[in-house]
Amino acid sequence: DIFNTIMTHFDKAQVTQDLTGQHWVITAGPTMEAIDPVRFISNHSSGKMGYALATAAIARGATVTLISGPVQITAPAGAKIIAVKSADEMLAACQQSMITQADVFIGAAAVADFKMKAACDQKMKKQSDTDEITLTLVKNPDIIATLAQQKRAKTLVGFAAETQNVIEYAKSKLERKGLDIIIANDVSRADIGFNQDDNQVTVITKDKTWSPDKTTKNALAGQLVEFINEYALQTSIS
Amino acid sequence: DIFNTIMTHFDKAQVTQDLTGQHWVITAGPTMEAIDPVRFISNHSSGKMGYALATAAIARGATVTLISGPVQITAPAGAKIIAVKSADEMLAACQQSMITQADVFIGAAAVADFKMKAACDQKMKKQSDTDEITLTLVKNPDIIATLAQQKRAKTLVGFAAETQNVIEYAKSKLERKGLDIIIANDVSRADIGFNQDDNQVTVITKDKTWSPDKTTKNALAGQLVEFINEYALQTSIS
Repeated sequence: DIFNTIMTHFDKAQVTQDLTGQHWVITAGPTMEAIDPVRFISNHSSGKMGYALATAAIARGATVTLISGPVQITAPAGAKIIAVKSADEMLAACQQSMITQADVFIGAAAVADFKMKAACDQKMKKQSDTDEITLTLVKNPDIIATLAQQKRAKTLVGFAAETQNVIEYAKSKLERKGLDIIIANDVSRADIGFNQDDNQVTVITKDKTWSPDKTTKNALAGQLVEFINEYALQTSIS
Repeated sequence: DIFNTIMTHFDKAQVTQDLTGQHWVITAGPTMEAIDPVRFISNHSSGKMGYALATAAIARGATVTLISGPVQITAPAGAKIIAVKSADEMLAACQQSMITQADVFIGAAAVADFKMKAACDQKMKKQSDTDEITLTLVKNPDIIATLAQQKRAKTLVGFAAETQNVIEYAKSKLERKGLDIIIANDVSRADIGFNQDDNQVTVITKDKTWSPDKTTKNALAGQLVEFINEYALQTSIS
C-alpha cells in the first residue's frame, strides 16, 4: 500500500539523494495582475509553501526550477529561480522550462483567476463625478490544466486553496484539470495557510485521501516531496 | 524669500532639534483593499518616501506618528507606528492620532482611490461558464481632504503620483483638497518614485514651484522636512 510505504519512510531521518537526475518544476507565490501602471490585483500568498517544497526536493537531489511571483522571502540555495509577475508570464516560463518533459510539476503558486480585460497604460484618474467604477476582468489561462493537457510533466501536483467545501472542490479540481495529486487547504483558518509558517493540508489522489498532522511548512514540504516521489514510483511500476 | 532661506539651510550639515515639541503625523505605503478573503487590490508603493520623512522629522526632534500600510521595510527608530491595511482604517487612525491638532500632516501613503462596493466573505469561485466578471468599486474616503476640512493639522502636505500632466494635476489637487503643500512626482519614470531608492519631485505651494535635484529618498526627505518647517514658520509669522 502506497500510504504505508510513505509513512514508513517518514520515520527515517536521513535524507537520501533519490531524486538525483530528476527535474522538478515548482511555482510559488502570488501573481500580480496590472490594473494600470501603479495599481494591481494580487493575493496574500507568501510563497513559503512553494519555496519549502523546492528546498525539500533539492535536499533529495532533484534539479529544481522555481518559478516565482513577487515574494519577500529568500530563494532556496541551488534552485534555478525565474521571477515572474502575471499569470501569463508564469505560464510562459513553465512551458519554456518544460520543453523537455519534467519529472514533477507542482503548482504551489496562488495564480490569479482573473486579469484585467485591458490594463490601462496611464494611471486611471478619479473623476469627481464618478462614485462607482467597474473593472472588467477576464479569465487567466489555467496554468496547471494547460500543462497537464500538454503533458509537460510526468506527475502533476496542484494546490486548492479554499474557504468552504474544501475537499469537495479539491476533488472536482483534480478530475477537471487532469492532475495526479491535489493538495487542499482551508485558507479561512487564520492559523494555517496564507502567510503563516504552519500548514495543514489534505492530499488527494484518484484513489486516496490523506491528512497529515498540522506542522511547519518546512516539515510538511518534506512529507509532500516523499509522497509525490512514492506516487510517481508506484505509477511508473503499475 | 522663503526659498532662499531654505536653500541656505541646506548648506548646513548639522541637524538642529528645532522640531522638538511638535507632533508630525505621516502616512506611508500602499493601502490594501480586500476583494475577498484571499484577493486584494493594492499598488506598488514601497513606503520608502514616508518612512524617510518620518526618520528626517525624528532627527530634528519631532514626535512622529507613522501610519503605515503593508510594507516590507524597517520602521524608523522612535516613531509611533500604527499599522493599517485599508483606506478606511488609515483615515480612522489619522483622525484618532489627531484628536489634538497636529503641527504637520504629510500624506505620503499611496491610498487606493477605490475599494470594493461589497467585499466577499468567501473566496469567489471561478465558474466554468463565466469568461468575464466585473468588480464594482466605490470611492474610498479622501483622507487628506477630510483631514484638511477638519483642520486636523496646522500644515497639510500631500503627494501627487502621476503619469502624465504631473504639475497640472498636482496644482488642481492642492486647491481642491485645501492643502498647503503638494509634492508631485512622475511615477511613469522607472528610475524614480515607486519602489526606487531615488526620487525627484516638484514641490508646489499656492505661490511657488520648486524642483530639487534628483537624489536619494533619504536626502530628499531632509530637504522636504526643512521646506515644510520653513513654510510653517513663515505662515505662522505672516
